[in-house]
Amino acid sequence: MSWQIGIEDLDALAIGAAILGTGGGGDPYIGRVMAETAIRENGSVTVYNVDDLDDDRWVIPIAGMGAPTVLFEKVPRGTEPVAAFRRLEDHLGVQDAFPCPIEAGGINSMVPLQVAALLKRPVVDADGMGRAFPALYMQTFHIFGIQGTPACIASEFDDFVILDHLHDNYALEWIARGITIRMGGHTFLSQFPMRGHDVKRSAIRGTLSLGLRIGKAVLLAEKNHRDPLEAVCEATHYAGYGRGQIVFSGKIVEVSRRTADGFARGKVRIQGLNADRDQSFEIEFQNENLLIRHEERILAMVPDLITVLDSHTGLAVTTERLRYGQRVAVLVIPAPAIMKSPEALQVWGPRGFDYDFDYEKYFGR
Amino acid sequence: MSWQIGIEDLDALAIGAAILGTGGGGDPYIGRVMAETAIRENGSVTVYNVDDLDDDRWVIPIAGMGAPTVLFEKVPRGTEPVAAFRRLEDHLGVQDAFPCPIEAGGINSMVPLQVAALLKRPVVDADGMGRAFPALYMQTFHIFGIQGTPACIASEFDDFVILDHLHDNYALEWIARGITIRMGGHTFLSQFPMRGHDVKRSAIRGTLSLGLRIGKAVLLAEKNHRDPLEAVCEATHYAGYGRGQIVFSGKIVEVSRRTADGFARGKVRIQGLNADRDQSFEIEFQNENLLIRHEERILAMVPDLITVLDSHTGLAVTTERLRYGQRVAVLVIPAPAIMKSPEALQVWGPRGFDYDFDYEKYFGR
Repeated sequence: MSWQIGIEDLDALAIGAAILGTGGGGDPYIGRVMAETAIRENGSVTVYNVDDLDDDRWVIPIAGMGAPTVLFEKVPRGTEPVAAFRRLEDHLGVQDAFPCPIEAGGINSMVPLQVAALLKRPVVDADGMGRAFPALYMQTFHIFGIQGTPACIASEFDDFVILDHLHDNYALEWIARGITIRMGGHTFLSQFPMRGHDVKRSAIRGTLSLGLRIGKAVLLAEKNHRDPLEAVCEATHYAGYGRGQIVFSGKIVEVSRRTADGFARGKVRIQGLNADRDQSFEIEFQNENLLIRHEERILAMVPDLITVLDSHTGLAVTTERLRYGQRVAVLVIPAPAIMKSPEALQVWGPRGFDYDFDYEKYFGR
Repeated sequence: MSWQIGIEDLDALAIGAAILGTGGGGDPYIGRVMAETAIRENGSVTVYNVDDLDDDRWVIPIAGMGAPTVLFEKVPRGTEPVAAFRRLEDHLGVQDAFPCPIEAGGINSMVPLQVAALLKRPVVDADGMGRAFPALYMQTFHIFGIQGTPACIASEFDDFVILDHLHDNYALEWIARGITIRMGGHTFLSQFPMRGHDVKRSAIRGTLSLGLRIGKAVLLAEKNHRDPLEAVCEATHYAGYGRGQIVFSGKIVEVSRRTADGFARGKVRIQGLNADRDQSFEIEFQNENLLIRHEERILAMVPDLITVLDSHTGLAVTTERLRYGQRVAVLVIPAPAIMKSPEALQVWGPRGFDYDFDYEKYFGR
């Protein structure tokens, strides 16, 4: 069943998407402004369930690409996402594709809404990452054997590059990343154009709904003076995701971060508070949070979702906004089964990020 | 008037193109093999004078792109040039464009012949550089205000990237270079698609004929036991180019060379022989030879053509083949007027290569 997403939902979606962004996916604020303007002008957007898609309906996942740190200084013009979407449609000879998120997190949950509103088309309630991930081949679309090209990259100069054919999805990541770096570190990208039947077999479903649900829970907790952390943990139990757990709370005592090769890489050290006073925890990230280290153990790891929340508000702190002294709580959300198949873990389990150990699920401390 | 170029001309063209390549443009050998195979299978190629082109005939310059040093190890598959050409035609909705060289030197004088032979179309007797140059904006097509995009890059993996629109030709160089680096350091590229009337106002004419003429002079000198260096110097006086001059002869005593940012950069020091015994000369290059230093003076500089020749054979020594101990003669060919307009010198005079002085023509030592 399809439903509508309007301006009144954007606050909640931004909050939820930032949490699903696991520290990455870009600051939802910029995407939110883009989506809000488009919805204000064109009315609310219809959200399509995957089951309702026609098998031969074209669907095009669309997103921003690049290091979130760059977005602070290089604000999008706003026309790029639709341009990247429409140029790829032109290249395919298609005029009625539905936009779909690439990832469930951050700015990229908003970008497809902007495109949908501007083109007056529905958006698909699904995505290819189920969270945010730093590489284009880290999508279920890739894991299920769908080809990422043709794809189209757009910059704020109205520059367009069509990746007409690349021999595999690793080459897509490599070439698109190189172009994005040379276009200033951030671009917008349409890719993995596919038919409804391919969406049905490969997409992670219901993640737009999930983001909205999480955000609404935070807002409701705030309104009712309830603990927002608890509200978030309850809300994540949806669409195959597990109940969220707060692994620990503490204060940020060290952040190291560098933007290199088109990625924001680094780690943050958090000193425990209260019962955890004498303990320190480290989170390593590459655009997104990858794992939590505590003493000699790794407490949680990709693809389970690790998000740093502001202790008081329950709002996500993206990796580029981590600052010394912040009081934070660290949330783990167990990823759904489709994200933990052997094929999926090969791509985005710890070994997919050059760690030399296998995925283990979070069992608590 | 159009004429034919056949297998029997390729030896001469390879020799002449290497000399016009001013040390760059890639080893003509590889391009020669590609052109020869195509002509053997499809017959000789018609060469069109620019004046004979219909004003609305599409012309697409086609070439290899990247550091010549890479071609030693990454031999082309051979299908790339036609693929880059045809994909760009498809993108333009055109089916009968004529291929044209981007540059007059090295492998890139051969590549359009291969395409012409395979597609059974004429090749245009002109190019955009009048020699070889290391950057895509260093073409008269750019100097006369023609847009480089759409363009298409092809790799040996049958990977195709269409540069649909880039806001200027410096962006074309920047993005295409970045893609070429990520595709392994060498690709093939179709670009600056234009109509006959634009070719007529912007191309450097007769440079395929010039290359053939120079090569034939070398071969004839060899046959008649004449001095090949003298024969080359006489033959260059054609199509607006000046008579060639041997600036000095000597022995290579030092070569420094590195492949970085997609370019082969370096310099070669040559110790004079005979009358020049006590003197040393230095040639600086970026894929192509840029200038000759002697004591405190700069003897010759871009865009005049500086080519290192083997003293005995008169054959060009490309920058990647410079070796300690070689006996060489250094040739300067005065470039034609179209290459020395104020607009052209801004692009490829010494300042175009970050030197802080203006172009001066070679007056002899």
